[in-house]
Amino acid sequence: MTSAGHVIALCGGVGGAKLAFGLTRLLDPEGLSLIVNTGDDFEHLGLTICPDLDTVTYTLAGLADRERGWGLAGETWNFMAQLRKLGGEHWFNLGDKDLALHVERTQRLAAGQSLSQVTAGVTAALGLRHAIVPMSDQPVRTIVDTIDGPLPFQHYFVREQCRPVARGISFAGAEQSVPSPAFTAALGRQDVAAVIICPSNPYLSIDPILAIPGVADALARLDAPVVAVSPIIGGRALKGPAAKLLAELGGLSGVTAVAAHYAGLVDGLVIDESDACEADRLRETGIAALVAPSVMTSDDDRIRLARDTLAFATGLTRRELRRA
Amino acid sequence: MTSAGHVIALCGGVGGAKLAFGLTRLLDPEGLSLIVNTGDDFEHLGLTICPDLDTVTYTLAGLADRERGWGLAGETWNFMAQLRKLGGEHWFNLGDKDLALHVERTQRLAAGQSLSQVTAGVTAALGLRHAIVPMSDQPVRTIVDTIDGPLPFQHYFVREQCRPVARGISFAGAEQSVPSPAFTAALGRQDVAAVIICPSNPYLSIDPILAIPGVADALARLDAPVVAVSPIIGGRALKGPAAKLLAELGGLSGVTAVAAHYAGLVDGLVIDESDACEADRLRETGIAALVAPSVMTSDDDRIRLARDTLAFATGLTRRELRRA
Repeated sequence: MTSAGHVIALCGGVGGAKLAFGLTRLLDPEGLSLIVNTGDDFEHLGLTICPDLDTVTYTLAGLADRERGWGLAGETWNFMAQLRKLGGEHWFNLGDKDLALHVERTQRLAAGQSLSQVTAGVTAALGLRHAIVPMSDQPVRTIVDTIDGPLPFQHYFVREQCRPVARGISFAGAEQSVPSPAFTAALGRQDVAAVIICPSNPYLSIDPILAIPGVADALARLDAPVVAVSPIIGGRALKGPAAKLLAELGGLSGVTAVAAHYAGLVDGLVIDESDACEADRLRETGIAALVAPSVMTSDDDRIRLARDTLAFATGLTRRELRRA
Repeated sequence: MTSAGHVIALCGGVGGAKLAFGLTRLLDPEGLSLIVNTGDDFEHLGLTICPDLDTVTYTLAGLADRERGWGLAGETWNFMAQLRKLGGEHWFNLGDKDLALHVERTQRLAAGQSLSQVTAGVTAALGLRHAIVPMSDQPVRTIVDTIDGPLPFQHYFVREQCRPVARGISFAGAEQSVPSPAFTAALGRQDVAAVIICPSNPYLSIDPILAIPGVADALARLDAPVVAVSPIIGGRALKGPAAKLLAELGGLSGVTAVAAHYAGLVDGLVIDESDACEADRLRETGIAALVAPSVMTSDDDRIRLARDTLAFATGLTRRELRRA
């Protein structure tokens, strides 16, 4: 399948990476700008760790572990075991292979490369044809404000296992950040045919991208439909705290919560067959709905959902929808 | 065996670490100051790597690999394999477990701890009773001046495999360095019974320690015999470039070269049985000689050589030797 125009995809970690994989199998490298959240990034053990960039990188390279859902296949954990013996901080698991990317990235950043340059270098070395674009080269750090106080994202997500009830989310550094060069270039294109919001956590993976000054406006100005793929399936998140956060912060549940969160931004929402009963309600709120199998287990699942989503998006005309 | 006074041991990597192991089995933690060379240390992949400190740490902890001669037993190499895939610098092998120490040390140094503090923390976590003392908390970096130009030590030793002919050796940063606090304290003790120079490379492991301003003078002022264990056995170095450097830089070979290099510093030299024929020649030059089995294969070998060396050293009286 080829697209008549350029596609911008906004993407977080695991779920988003799966759809991104599908998109790369359907679109040429020139036809896709794959923009990845960096709000989850953090400094740990002196290393700069970028979980979403890494998940997308490993997924596109076919190196991701499919059972565990994160990290590299065939990973070993001898570094962590030894770090524990040395009395080091060990709440965040780093595999022996995975560590190579963190060490290499940290070193290249220290040598003056931008995160975009580092990512381009690493993905080229792994043989990836499609560019993986960090949303920004400046650090933006997601902070979850919980009833126990503010927590940097990885402390909330990994160390505290998302247990504290969230009251709000902020993105430290976002106001001082600008979109990365490739993201800026994509937002300025005249030939954008669709913007795809991958099935990632709206609060934690997509909102940080939208928090970069100018991004939301630029998306609104694009003469292209914006379509999100719901990360909520059958009322639940397949992975991560999306459902918990939608309830705690938005007071809603299910795909309705996703639609409400993206109100004003998206023209259409792709929902799973298990949520088909919600389609009419979505349409009543002015959001087009596509019901499509959204659980991506195999590579074929990923490609099929990407194809369905692209066809759905390019079948919508944003201006018409806006007029409606 | 208990010593009547305090023992200061100067130590490099593999060979030195074996004798250090023996000394720790004979002397209480309070009876031994184990001073380790840091001239081999270097910054690599953004990490501070201290090969001699690590070899001594792993050897004393019983974690060292005995077959390979360096690094940890049961080591894996998945980090390196992945780093190679990412296009990273891979001429220096870093094991997955070993990496934990470099990452932890680099992080603690960045947080403001001194190398002495980091080393104390790590060795305590590993359950070591004896302190391992870096010669200095300031960076001192051995540079080998070769006919191909100056090479930082690890580039000479690992990347170039010691092939370039050496013309001289210098210790960058030595002039600005001071002995570490525990080394300074040891040098100021009134109860030093012996100084043991472990069977390490005289040029690369011991000279950096002696290059720290004040150390050579302080050793000369001590009212205690200084005894070296020859790293040259049967005319060869068991490991590393000691014999090559002694020939290239000193123009001599065998234990005679070791004695000549340490002239004015040592009162006695321990030589292997295979070099027994050199004993009389050494004595003619005013250096006491002990012939003792010096190849340390088993833990018993290490302890026996340490015992022989301590008995030899404490049997000498430095002042009498000086008057002779």
